[in-house]
Amino acid sequence: MEIQVGIIMGSKSDLPVMSEAALVLEELGVGYELTVVSAHRTPERMVEYAKTAKERGLKVIIAGAGGAAHLPGMVASLTTLPVIGVPVKSSNSIDGWDSVLSILQMPAGIPVATVALNGAKNAGILAASIVGAFQKDVAEKLDAFKNELKEKVEHAAKEIETKGWKHT
Amino acid sequence: MEIQVGIIMGSKSDLPVMSEAALVLEELGVGYELTVVSAHRTPERMVEYAKTAKERGLKVIIAGAGGAAHLPGMVASLTTLPVIGVPVKSSNSIDGWDSVLSILQMPAGIPVATVALNGAKNAGILAASIVGAFQKDVAEKLDAFKNELKEKVEHAAKEIETKGWKHT
Amino acid sequence: MEIQVGIIMGSKSDLPVMSEAALVLEELGVGYELTVVSAHRTPERMVEYAKTAKERGLKVIIAGAGGAAHLPGMVASLTTLPVIGVPVKSSNSIDGWDSVLSILQMPAGIPVATVALNGAKNAGILAASIVGAFQKDVAEKLDAFKNELKEKVEHAAKEIETKGWKHT
Amino acid sequence: MEIQVGIIMGSKSDLPVMSEAALVLEELGVGYELTVVSAHRTPERMVEYAKTAKERGLKVIIAGAGGAAHLPGMVASLTTLPVIGVPVKSSNSIDGWDSVLSILQMPAGIPVATVALNGAKNAGILAASIVGAFQKDVAEKLDAFKNELKEKVEHAAKEIETKGWKHT
Amino acid sequence: MEIQVGIIMGSKSDLPVMSEAALVLEELGVGYELTVVSAHRTPERMVEYAKTAKERGLKVIIAGAGGAAHLPGMVASLTTLPVIGVPVKSSNSIDGWDSVLSILQMPAGIPVATVALNGAKNAGILAASIVGAFQKDVAEKLDAFKNELKEKVEHAAKEIETKGWKHT
Amino acid sequence: MEIQVGIIMGSKSDLPVMSEAALVLEELGVGYELTVVSAHRTPERMVEYAKTAKERGLKVIIAGAGGAAHLPGMVASLTTLPVIGVPVKSSNSIDGWDSVLSILQMPAGIPVATVALNGAKNAGILAASIVGAFQKDVAEKLDAFKNELKEKVEHAAKEIETKGWKHT
Amino acid sequence: MEIQVGIIMGSKSDLPVMSEAALVLEELGVGYELTVVSAHRTPERMVEYAKTAKERGLKVIIAGAGGAAHLPGMVASLTTLPVIGVPVKSSNSIDGWDSVLSILQMPAGIPVATVALNGAKNAGILAASIVGAFQKDVAEKLDAFKNELKEKVEHAAKEIETKGWKHT
Amino acid sequence: MEIQVGIIMGSKSDLPVMSEAALVLEELGVGYELTVVSAHRTPERMVEYAKTAKERGLKVIIAGAGGAAHLPGMVASLTTLPVIGVPVKSSNSIDGWDSVLSILQMPAGIPVATVALNGAKNAGILAASIVGAFQKDVAEKLDAFKNELKEKVEHAAKEIETKGWKHT
Repeated sequence: MEIQVGIIMGSKSDLPVMSEAALVLEELGVGYELTVVSAHRTPERMVEYAKTAKERGLKVIIAGAGGAAHLPGMVASLTTLPVIGVPVKSSNSIDGWDSVLSILQMPAGIPVATVALNGAKNAGILAASIVGAFQKDVAEKLDAFKNELKEKVEHAAKEIETKGWKHT
Repeated sequence: MEIQVGIIMGSKSDLPVMSEAALVLEELGVGYELTVVSAHRTPERMVEYAKTAKERGLKVIIAGAGGAAHLPGMVASLTTLPVIGVPVKSSNSIDGWDSVLSILQMPAGIPVATVALNGAKNAGILAASIVGAFQKDVAEKLDAFKNELKEKVEHAAKEIETKGWKHT
Repeated sequence: MEIQVGIIMGSKSDLPVMSEAALVLEELGVGYELTVVSAHRTPERMVEYAKTAKERGLKVIIAGAGGAAHLPGMVASLTTLPVIGVPVKSSNSIDGWDSVLSILQMPAGIPVATVALNGAKNAGILAASIVGAFQKDVAEKLDAFKNELKEKVEHAAKEIETKGWKHT
Repeated sequence: MEIQVGIIMGSKSDLPVMSEAALVLEELGVGYELTVVSAHRTPERMVEYAKTAKERGLKVIIAGAGGAAHLPGMVASLTTLPVIGVPVKSSNSIDGWDSVLSILQMPAGIPVATVALNGAKNAGILAASIVGAFQKDVAEKLDAFKNELKEKVEHAAKEIETKGWKHT
Repeated sequence: MEIQVGIIMGSKSDLPVMSEAALVLEELGVGYELTVVSAHRTPERMVEYAKTAKERGLKVIIAGAGGAAHLPGMVASLTTLPVIGVPVKSSNSIDGWDSVLSILQMPAGIPVATVALNGAKNAGILAASIVGAFQKDVAEKLDAFKNELKEKVEHAAKEIETKGWKHT
Repeated sequence: MEIQVGIIMGSKSDLPVMSEAALVLEELGVGYELTVVSAHRTPERMVEYAKTAKERGLKVIIAGAGGAAHLPGMVASLTTLPVIGVPVKSSNSIDGWDSVLSILQMPAGIPVATVALNGAKNAGILAASIVGAFQKDVAEKLDAFKNELKEKVEHAAKEIETKGWKHT
Repeated sequence: MEIQVGIIMGSKSDLPVMSEAALVLEELGVGYELTVVSAHRTPERMVEYAKTAKERGLKVIIAGAGGAAHLPGMVASLTTLPVIGVPVKSSNSIDGWDSVLSILQMPAGIPVATVALNGAKNAGILAASIVGAFQKDVAEKLDAFKNELKEKVEHAAKEIETKGWKHT
Repeated sequence: MEIQVGIIMGSKSDLPVMSEAALVLEELGVGYELTVVSAHRTPERMVEYAKTAKERGLKVIIAGAGGAAHLPGMVASLTTLPVIGVPVKSSNSIDGWDSVLSILQMPAGIPVATVALNGAKNAGILAASIVGAFQKDVAEKLDAFKNELKEKVEHAAKEIETKGWKHT
C-alpha cells in the first residue's frame, strides 16, 4: 500500500496517544509511516523530514506534540503539504492549554489543521478525508466508517428505548 | 476555473473576516464558491449544503462561525469531505474562547481542521495545500507564495540591518 | 403518566450523568422519555427528534453533551420548545470549558437554558419548574422538594450546634 | 395583556442590556413587568419580590446581573418558578467570566436557566418559549419569529450568491 | 471565652475544609461559633443569621461556599461586620474558578474579604488579626504564631544546609 | 482625626484606582494616610513601613498593586495587622488575572483580605467595617452608608416602575 | 562597543515592543545587534542565525514573537547560549495567552528564560544582568539603574506625603 | 568546585520539584548551594540571602515557589544577579496559574527569568547556559548534554522505524 500519510511526534512518550491515528488509518485503508521527530531536540532531523516529505510521496503530515508544541507549526513552515496538528496533553502541559494554543494560533501564512486535545484518532480520519477527496476508494471507506458510527448510536438508542435506561 | 472549495459562514456579519479566505484562494488560483449558511437559523439549508457538496465537485469546505459555533462541526458530520473551521471572534463571543473550543473540541469520529481565531486567510491557504497535494499547479503557486513570505521578511531584515532599526 | 419532558444525550457514555435528570423527574412526578441522539453521528435522527417533539406532546427537552457540544443548540434551532442544555464533562473535554461554552454561548435568536457542568439533576428540576408554572400538582411537589432541602440543612445545622462540629 | 414574565436587574446600569428582553417579549406578545432589584443593596426587597412572584401571576422570572452576580441564584432559591439568568458584562466584571460562573454554577437543587453573556434577547425568547409550550398563540408567534430569522439568512445568502460577495 | 467570630458554610460537606478556620482560632485564643447556613436552601435562616450577628457580639464572620458561592456576599449585604469569604473547591466546582470569582468580584458597596481557594486556615488567621488589631492578647498570640512559622522554615533550612538535601 | 488605616500602592500610576479607598474612608469618617511603597523598587522602604505600622497606630493596611503584585502579601508577612489587597488592572497586567492570583493565593499562615479587581472603594469600606466592629461611631456611619445604597436602588426602581423603563 | 546581545523578532511589526530591549541595553552600556528572523517564514535563516550566534561573540539572545510563538524555543534548541523569550501580544494573539504559553512551557532539556507579556524592557535588563554577573562595569550600571528606580518611587512618595495626594 | 548557583525554594515541600535543578547542575559540572528561604515566613532571611548573594560569589539564583509565589520576584528586587523563577504547582495552587503569573508578570525594571511550571530541570540548564556563556568548560558540557538528548530521540526513532511502532 502506497504511503500517503506521515505521522510524527515530538517524543516516544506521545505514542499511546498518537498511535490512534495509525490505527484508524489502517482501518480506512490509507498507507502511513510513523516515527519520532523532535523540534527541540532534533531540529535538523525535523528540517530534513519536512523538506523531503513531498518528494517521498506523502500527501499529508500528522504531527503531535505537547506543552510548548512547536513541531506541527515548524513542519508546516518547511513544506506545502497540509499539516495536521495534534495537541497532546503531556505530563508537562498545563491542562492542555499550552499544547492547544501553541499549535492552533499560527500566524497568517502558515496554517496548521488543528484537532482536539489528544484527538489523534480524528487526525487520522481527517487525513483520510483529505486523501478521500481525491481517491474514491478511501471516500467509500469513510462513508462506511461514518455509517458504523451512526449504527452504533442507533443500536444504543434502541436498546435504551426498548429495555429502559435502568436496564442497560 | 473549477470550483473546488466551498466557503460558508454563519452570518453575513462574518464576511469581513471570512473574505480573506476567498482572496487568498484567488491569489493561489483555486476556484471557490462563497455563501451564508446558518446552523441555527437555517438548519435544513445546512443539511442540504453539506450533503450535496461532494457531488457538486467540492474538495474542501471552509466554515466560519462565532460564539457557540456549531456550523463547522455539523457540516463535518454531514459529509466526508475535509472541513476547515474558522473560529470567528464575533461580537457575542467571550474573547474568542467559545468560538475556538466549540469548533476544535469535536468528538472522536468527526474531525474539524481548526485554524487560529479569525484565521480565515490560513483556512484558505490550508484548503489550497490540500488541493495542492494532488494538483501540481496549485502546489507550485503555494511554493511561490511561501517564497514571497520569506522574501518580505528578508527584505525587512536587510533594511533594519543596514539602516539601523531607529531609521525604519 | 403523560410524557412531558424528553431527555436526550449525545452518547450512551453520558448516561451516568444524565440519569440524574430522570430520577429527579420521577421524584417530582413528571413523565419523561429518555434516549440517545447524537448531533454528529446521527444528524438526521436529531432533526427528526427535534421536529416531532412538540406534536408528540413534549413541553421541554433536556439535552446533554460534552466537548464541542452541539446537540442542545442544534435541537433548539429545530423546535420552539424550551431546551435545557447540560454541559457534560466528558473524557474528551478540557476541564468542561468546551462543553459549557459551546452550549451557553448561543447566538441571538436561539436560546439554550444552560445549567451547571454535569448539572443534570438541576436540569430535571428546571424542567419540572417549567411544567409547574402551569400545572399545580407539579408546583406542589416542587414546594415539598424545596422544603426537604431546607430541612436537611437545618437538621445538619442543629446537629453541629448541639453536638459540636468535632463530634459529627 | 396578562403579565407573565418578570424582568429584574441588579442595577439600573444593566438596563441597556436587559431592555432587549423586554423588546423581544413585546414582539412575541408576552406581557411583562420590569424593575430594579439588587441582591446586595436591597436584599429584603429581593426576598419580597421573589416570594410574591407566583401569586402575582408570573410564570417566569428573568434576572440579570454582573460581576459576583447573586441575583438570579438567590431569586431561584426563593421561588419555584423557572428563573432565567442573564450574565451581564458589567464594568466591574473580568471579561464576563465572573458573571457567567456565578450564575451558571448553581448547586444541585436550585437551578438557574443561564443564557449567553449579555444574552438578554435570548432570555426573552426563552421565556416566551416556556409560555409558548402551554399557550398556543405564543407558540405561533415564536414560529413566525423563527421563520423570519431563516428568511433573513436566506435573503443575505441569495444576495451574495447572485451579486457576488464583493458587491454586497 | 467570648465568641467573637462566626464560622458558617453552605453545606456540611464543606466542614473538612472549613474546620481549619476553627482549629487555628482555637490555637490563637479567639472564641468562635460554627454552623451550617445555606444561601440557596435556607435563605431565611441566612437573613436571620446575618442580621443578628452583630447584636450577638460577633466581630467577624467567616463564610465558606463552593460553585456559584453566594453565601459570603449575601451575608455581607445583610450586616456591617467584616465578612471573610472562603472559596471552597467543592465537587460541583470548575477547578475552583467559580467559587473564587463569585466570592471575590463583589460590586462596589459590599466588600467580601476573600482568601485563597480552600484557604480556611488563612480565614481564621485573618479573623484573629482583625480582633488582634484591637485586643492586645490576641495580637501577642499572632506574634508567637508567626514566630513559629519562621522557626519551622529556619529549622528546615538548617537541616538541609548541614546534612545536605539528599539526606533530608 | 486619628489615623487608623494606611493606604499604600506599588506605583503612583495606581493612584486613580486607589484614591477611591481614600475617598470612601473620608465619607465614613475614618482617618487614613496614603503613600507609595514599591515591593520591587523600594523593598527596604516596604519592610520599614510594614514593621512600624502597628506602633504608629494603624489598625488596617490597604495595599494595591498590579501584575505580579507582591506588595500586599509581603506587607502581610511583615505585620500582624490585617492587610487588604487590591488587585489593580495595570497596563502590564493580563486582563487582571495576574494581579488577582498573586494577591489572593497566599500560602497558609499569611492571609491577605483580597477584594475585587480595581475594588479600592470596597477596600476602604472593608477597612471601615473592621474599625466599625470595634468603634460604634464608624459602625453607625456604615449603617447610614448602606442605607443610602438601598435608597438609591429603590429610587431607581420606583422611577422605572412609575414612568416605564422607556422613559428613564 | 562589543556586541554581546542579539535581539531578534518574528516580524517587523514587533519592533515597537522589542525596541525597548534595545533602548535599555544602550542605557546599561551593553552592545547589541537587532534584526528580524521568522521561525515560520524564514526557518533556514533562523537555523543559521542561532547556530552562528556563539561564534559571532554573542552571550545572550533575546527573541520576541506573538501568537503560536516558536522563535524563542526553536532558537534555544539550536544554541547553548541563554535565550530570553518575550511573549508579544500581537494582533493575532488571544489576549497574550498563546504567546506566553508557547514560549514558557518548553519541554525538559531546552529552557527559554521567559519574561512578562510585552516585557521587552525586562528582557534587556535580564540580558544585562547576565552579562553583569561576569563583567563588573555592567553590574555597576545595573546598580545605578536600580537606584534610580528606587529614587523615583521615593520622590513620588515624598511628593504625595507632603502635598497630599489630591494635589499631585 | 566553585559555587556559582544558589537554589532556594519557599518551602521544604518544594524539594521534590526543585532538586531536579540541583541534579542537572551536578551533571553539567556547575557548583551550587541549596536551601529553604520563605518570602512570607522568613522575609528578613530572604533579604539577607539576596543582598549577600553576589559577594558570596554566586552568578545566578534559582528560586522556586508556588501559589502567590513572591520569592523569585522579591529576590530579583534585592540583587542585580539574574534570577530564574520556577513556578511550582504546589498543593495550594489553582492548576499552577497563580504560580506562573505571580512569577512571570514582573513590572518593568525587575525581571525574573521564568521557566515552565515545575520546570526546575530547565532552570538548572538555563543557569548552566548563563555560566557557560562565559566559561568554556561548562559550554562544552552543555554541548554534550544536548547531543545526548538528540541521540536519545534518534535512537527511539530508529527503533520504531525498524521494528515498527507496535513492537516497541
